[in-house]
Amino acid sequence: MAAPVLPERIVHAMLGELRVPHFADVARAAEAIAPHVLRTPLLRSPVLDERAGGPVWLKAENLQVTGSFKIRGAFNAVLALPPGRRAAGVVAYSTGNHGQAIAWAARRLGVPATIVMPVDAPKNKVARALAQGARVVHYDRARESREDIGMRLLAETGGTLVPPGDHPEVLAAQGTVALEALQDLAPEARAGLGLFAAPCGGGGLMAGCSLALAALAPQAERVAVEPAGFDDTVRSLASGRRETNAPGATTLCDALMAVTPAELPFAVNQPLLGRAVAVSDAEVAAAMRFALEELRLVVEPGGSVALAALLAGHLDLQGRSAVIVLSGGNVDLPVLQSVTASPRHEAATSGPQETVPPPSIPGKS
Amino acid sequence: MAAPVLPERIVHAMLGELRVPHFADVARAAEAIAPHVLRTPLLRSPVLDERAGGPVWLKAENLQVTGSFKIRGAFNAVLALPPGRRAAGVVAYSTGNHGQAIAWAARRLGVPATIVMPVDAPKNKVARALAQGARVVHYDRARESREDIGMRLLAETGGTLVPPGDHPEVLAAQGTVALEALQDLAPEARAGLGLFAAPCGGGGLMAGCSLALAALAPQAERVAVEPAGFDDTVRSLASGRRETNAPGATTLCDALMAVTPAELPFAVNQPLLGRAVAVSDAEVAAAMRFALEELRLVVEPGGSVALAALLAGHLDLQGRSAVIVLSGGNVDLPVLQSVTASPRHEAATSGPQETVPPPSIPGKS
Repeated sequence: MAAPVLPERIVHAMLGELRVPHFADVARAAEAIAPHVLRTPLLRSPVLDERAGGPVWLKAENLQVTGSFKIRGAFNAVLALPPGRRAAGVVAYSTGNHGQAIAWAARRLGVPATIVMPVDAPKNKVARALAQGARVVHYDRARESREDIGMRLLAETGGTLVPPGDHPEVLAAQGTVALEALQDLAPEARAGLGLFAAPCGGGGLMAGCSLALAALAPQAERVAVEPAGFDDTVRSLASGRRETNAPGATTLCDALMAVTPAELPFAVNQPLLGRAVAVSDAEVAAAMRFALEELRLVVEPGGSVALAALLAGHLDLQGRSAVIVLSGGNVDLPVLQSVTASPRHEAATSGPQETVPPPSIPGKS
Repeated sequence: MAAPVLPERIVHAMLGELRVPHFADVARAAEAIAPHVLRTPLLRSPVLDERAGGPVWLKAENLQVTGSFKIRGAFNAVLALPPGRRAAGVVAYSTGNHGQAIAWAARRLGVPATIVMPVDAPKNKVARALAQGARVVHYDRARESREDIGMRLLAETGGTLVPPGDHPEVLAAQGTVALEALQDLAPEARAGLGLFAAPCGGGGLMAGCSLALAALAPQAERVAVEPAGFDDTVRSLASGRRETNAPGATTLCDALMAVTPAELPFAVNQPLLGRAVAVSDAEVAAAMRFALEELRLVVEPGGSVALAALLAGHLDLQGRSAVIVLSGGNVDLPVLQSVTASPRHEAATSGPQETVPPPSIPGKS
């Protein structure tokens, strides 16, 4: 099957002309960021395989530096700054993980960072950005536009904006998540991979990963997973244009509250994505509990949507293999505790559950 | 430095003559169990490195099949059963993880299993053993001896006892934890490894690991970590004989409540261990919170004691590198929630913590 042809560039409504990255950019990003990020493990779980109905590899980006895959794009973007632009610093607007990643990468590369965050961002994300020496500017999601605030900060500082999705170096670097996963699979497992699913907010992770998958495992179905109420990519793939979410929607998944697909990622995702699916808050909570109890992993709500889709039966492996991305693990403990407050005590394994009566044992009354 | 010489065999008070395993047994076990267990990742965390004062690799056995390293010894022991002994089954007495591992391994190898567990074992450990089709027999820690019950069950069933520590095949297989970790280090990191620390209950894990370390990285200090109140190995190393813990001691670490060092492991640990240290419940709770918030890992109390010793300053790296074993992740969610109920919200990274006042932004009141 011929690979879909991507546009060479797009004209972004606010940022002007943007180059559409290709697989070579993903490969270059992998080399550039390797000294700065972790090669996260590709985890297995026999219990998950049984539940899913096929072999599953989990790409554990919740174990990544700063607790999410966003550090990949952040390092690649800051490393790509021309030397003359470094002193003026970088500006990022972010629901949290991207801002935290920019703060971390900028500090390690000696570049000043200003992070624009909503006032309701998880406390630990704000605290960590501050701890990295970043300047944090808050805004109110309901009343203000983070893009406008970002633009004003740029005018004040002369710095460089690093958007979370609409940036070729960011998008390409997010694709190293899939590149590493595919490299870590045995050749026959890679050639036979049935499905790849990852969380989708603005779409940068899925777009970068799609570039790697189309190049190295084109047979694998590429699936973006969104939270219900923020299923703009589901609807945009159906309509063929960037749809927006209804105002006032809520979700557990603070990291995936994009209003509409980011333009550059959508230019990649539209031709390359197989499909997109949405999961409910209850399915997300069940996946977070499963991760805690069966996988012994902390996964944040937005980071667990692809796992949630798998566990809820929306991906339907039917014997196919899958790589599932756990994209982040930054969740305040009180949120983690309230989400997982109704643990299911039954074991998730299949098989006989009966209690065999104890044998008669002398001395045991 | 010449390697300490181990005895060829010991005479166990109850089990008779036991062969003392050597490194070749660890290597053989690695090959035997490879198809059945996970090669768990060796994780890094820049935040942990900063806290610890040296580079740290975490061997994440909490991500192992059945949630603990015990599955290694369980498979090796059941695989070693002569064909004629399989049908009569295996019997294990266990605070939980060993029993669960035996249940899992026995089921997958088609061997009946009976597990003797205390009545106060964590609910999820009991449920999982039952889910694996094992027969579970409860006993009261205060009134009964699990060894006596195990012996009676053996007489009834004609089965084979698989003790958690006093078994050459179990002990050797637990050493594959260190073997894998050392294999996964780069050659220069292995040659320069400063310290290896693992949780210690009966001592089987640390004994097996010491065999691998003495063979492949003899320069690394070997440290066993125990919970306060169950510091029998600390005191036994000091006195030169197997000391017992005071009756009635309590600890968060349900997996490490051994009364005294198991005989076979102590025969290995006495000449090979560098030292043993004990950690308080508060230090364990802090380590479990650190694992949840900074590492995004669920580690059970007993599984986190070596990490606790590191974070509490008892290991004092002073620039040395370390491998720390996280030995298990089986903890009921309510316990996890109560232990981590006082989260520390400050970021654990060092560095400037000041909040920079926001710039004047037109339109932002």
